[in-house]
Amino acid sequence: MDVRMRGFKERMRVDEALKLYFEKANLKKLDSEKVDLLNAYNRVLSQDIVAKYDVPHFDRSAVDGYAVKAENTFGASTTNPILLKVVGSIDIGEKPDFEIKDGVAAKIATGAPIPKGANAVVMLEYTNDLGDYVEILSAISPFKNVSRKGEDVKAGEVVLSKGEILQPQDIGILASLGIKEVEVAKIPRIAVLTTGNELIEDYGELDVGKIINSNSPMICAAIREIGCIPTSLGIAKDNPEVIETKIEEGLKVADAVVVTGGTSVGEKDYVAVVVKKLGSLIVHGVSMKPGMPTGLGVVDNKPILLLPGFPMAALLSFYTFMPKIVERLLDVEVLGKKGEVVKAVTKRRIPSSSGIRTFARVIYKDGFIEPLRTSGSGVLTSMIKANGLVIIEEDKEGIEEGEEVEVVLTRHLVRLL
Amino acid sequence: MDVRMRGFKERMRVDEALKLYFEKANLKKLDSEKVDLLNAYNRVLSQDIVAKYDVPHFDRSAVDGYAVKAENTFGASTTNPILLKVVGSIDIGEKPDFEIKDGVAAKIATGAPIPKGANAVVMLEYTNDLGDYVEILSAISPFKNVSRKGEDVKAGEVVLSKGEILQPQDIGILASLGIKEVEVAKIPRIAVLTTGNELIEDYGELDVGKIINSNSPMICAAIREIGCIPTSLGIAKDNPEVIETKIEEGLKVADAVVVTGGTSVGEKDYVAVVVKKLGSLIVHGVSMKPGMPTGLGVVDNKPILLLPGFPMAALLSFYTFMPKIVERLLDVEVLGKKGEVVKAVTKRRIPSSSGIRTFARVIYKDGFIEPLRTSGSGVLTSMIKANGLVIIEEDKEGIEEGEEVEVVLTRHLVRLL
Repeated sequence: MDVRMRGFKERMRVDEALKLYFEKANLKKLDSEKVDLLNAYNRVLSQDIVAKYDVPHFDRSAVDGYAVKAENTFGASTTNPILLKVVGSIDIGEKPDFEIKDGVAAKIATGAPIPKGANAVVMLEYTNDLGDYVEILSAISPFKNVSRKGEDVKAGEVVLSKGEILQPQDIGILASLGIKEVEVAKIPRIAVLTTGNELIEDYGELDVGKIINSNSPMICAAIREIGCIPTSLGIAKDNPEVIETKIEEGLKVADAVVVTGGTSVGEKDYVAVVVKKLGSLIVHGVSMKPGMPTGLGVVDNKPILLLPGFPMAALLSFYTFMPKIVERLLDVEVLGKKGEVVKAVTKRRIPSSSGIRTFARVIYKDGFIEPLRTSGSGVLTSMIKANGLVIIEEDKEGIEEGEEVEVVLTRHLVRLL
Repeated sequence: MDVRMRGFKERMRVDEALKLYFEKANLKKLDSEKVDLLNAYNRVLSQDIVAKYDVPHFDRSAVDGYAVKAENTFGASTTNPILLKVVGSIDIGEKPDFEIKDGVAAKIATGAPIPKGANAVVMLEYTNDLGDYVEILSAISPFKNVSRKGEDVKAGEVVLSKGEILQPQDIGILASLGIKEVEVAKIPRIAVLTTGNELIEDYGELDVGKIINSNSPMICAAIREIGCIPTSLGIAKDNPEVIETKIEEGLKVADAVVVTGGTSVGEKDYVAVVVKKLGSLIVHGVSMKPGMPTGLGVVDNKPILLLPGFPMAALLSFYTFMPKIVERLLDVEVLGKKGEVVKAVTKRRIPSSSGIRTFARVIYKDGFIEPLRTSGSGVLTSMIKANGLVIIEEDKEGIEEGEEVEVVLTRHLVRLL
């Protein structure tokens, strides 16, 4: 056992330490703020997002073809084509000013609005262009090849819930709903204080006995890594008054404070003493190696994380505790991380063609996946309903029902705390 | 088959497309720039880092105890203590001004410099404080409990190599070496152009036929996600002159250009035509679903990625190709991602104590791990030599040689291109 560990009589297991801490600490949740969409990536939603419009907000063609009254195609086949007069052409982005009556059709592009009177689109493949007329070679039913108003999203529908961590696909759907700003949790600011009489910021000449403060830039980088904003409070000598002043300075400018060094129970380990004086130190000494002299305190409902002075121990303890503390500040627990690969059994067959790499959007839950029925790649909501992707390689033809596959999470799996 | 896919006679597999593209594209590598340590997190080193100093730069005590001449302790035991006169006390950060001669000792703290004449430290546990004298209860050999000058890093040693993606532990070691600035690859800037006559930036009133440009904010967010800087070029109508002007604008301000929509082979799909005019379109049509109308072009040695207009297809194609293209710009291939969990067999036993969560630093390679012999958590280089962590839970006692374990990668595994 390391000499510096003496005095930690009651070391707590990591899980117990976190449980006790969150039971007792009563941490203040972060406020929210409005940000525009361009700054919303990876932020935690603090509101439900309700669609103001239907998506699509007009009936539109899902294919290139001819807009018709479906009834006019009944009986059509390659051997018995039906002739319709072409009254116009509608491109994507255009608004048709004519009406489709019996016996007529209009050429239409994918995504273009269905003209008044029409209720279906015959794909180009099943037509024969004769100039002013078109031959219809196949009968279709009403609404065939039409993406209907509100098919993707209905006005009033909740499309994204509080706690969701916004990913590019969410930004896409928000934009398409005409939403320019969202209410999200503020980014946590974390102040870093390093303590130790031996620490200096720079080697003038190589002073024997002195050590450059490497913990501060290291922990600041780790704070960035977990998506927070670091502030360095510099170095405090092993002096309780100085440490107290610095911690109070940190509490003013940040939502959490990290202190490295001086966290043990030796003569000059003043950090614990100061935290106890300012607030409370709920955990002191954790059964982890390295990282035993870790402490979890709270002052003014803000968390104070006491890290050992040894760099490796400080970093590992930071990673063990700070992300969990940040989740509390953001009021959301991350159960699965975007990009993580999990194994799951598919509840339904997922088709794919040999030679084509297929990206199947799925809903993952508790070890199972439900593939989303996606009619075309334009269906926006498949992007936000899905939380995973099954990538079917070129040499495989589909995934059978009951087969176990690897699922890449396409969003963080979260639950509100 | 989607109507919009017609015309892609020779669709290429994803891997083939990338291979052909990188063979032919001759992409320009990004320049490097100097950044200070606080901005170096996650940046790609474009120089080897050579230590200017030894670390530690003085012999220091690894424990709390008494600095002695080891020879003076020979024969000492609990039943036969040896008495030494205490001539001083050295705390961490202090520089001793006395010398240890035969028959004397000095109290010393962990991390404090070994005084002249001493060559070992007896741990407090094996001593008995008598005020002006100390009883030594155990014999020790020379250099016992001394972290020797240069033990961690020797001056002149390469501590981090070109291509390394800087993690918090690296920032820590750079700081401790007195390095304040590093040369890193510039952050790639990627310009985004969306095309389509139907696109608008905002709903005034809900215009039938019009669609809000959701691809641009979505792809900009995805660009942030992969660590690059996005610039939006706005919307281009389906007009080759406008598209050409916008792409040229993008090439001026960015290191790569992404274009969404108009990438197919239909009447109004001008993007491919424009890219062919400006430079070359090496790949057009990929065997992936969604995402078939993807194209990979190059103009002035800068990459142009042509994405389909459908949001989901655009995003999946972006993720499939852009990270690989960015690696080329940065001149480094990522073989494994930090945070990824891989399985590996340990070549040596890794000890741990029951009831303590143990974080063992390991070197992972080709399915095997080599645990690092770490004498104490202060050994800085274990942080940068290690590329993985084995977390041994509290209820387990060590990992046996040959056992398969899960390894969390603590840095990106990279190789220079």
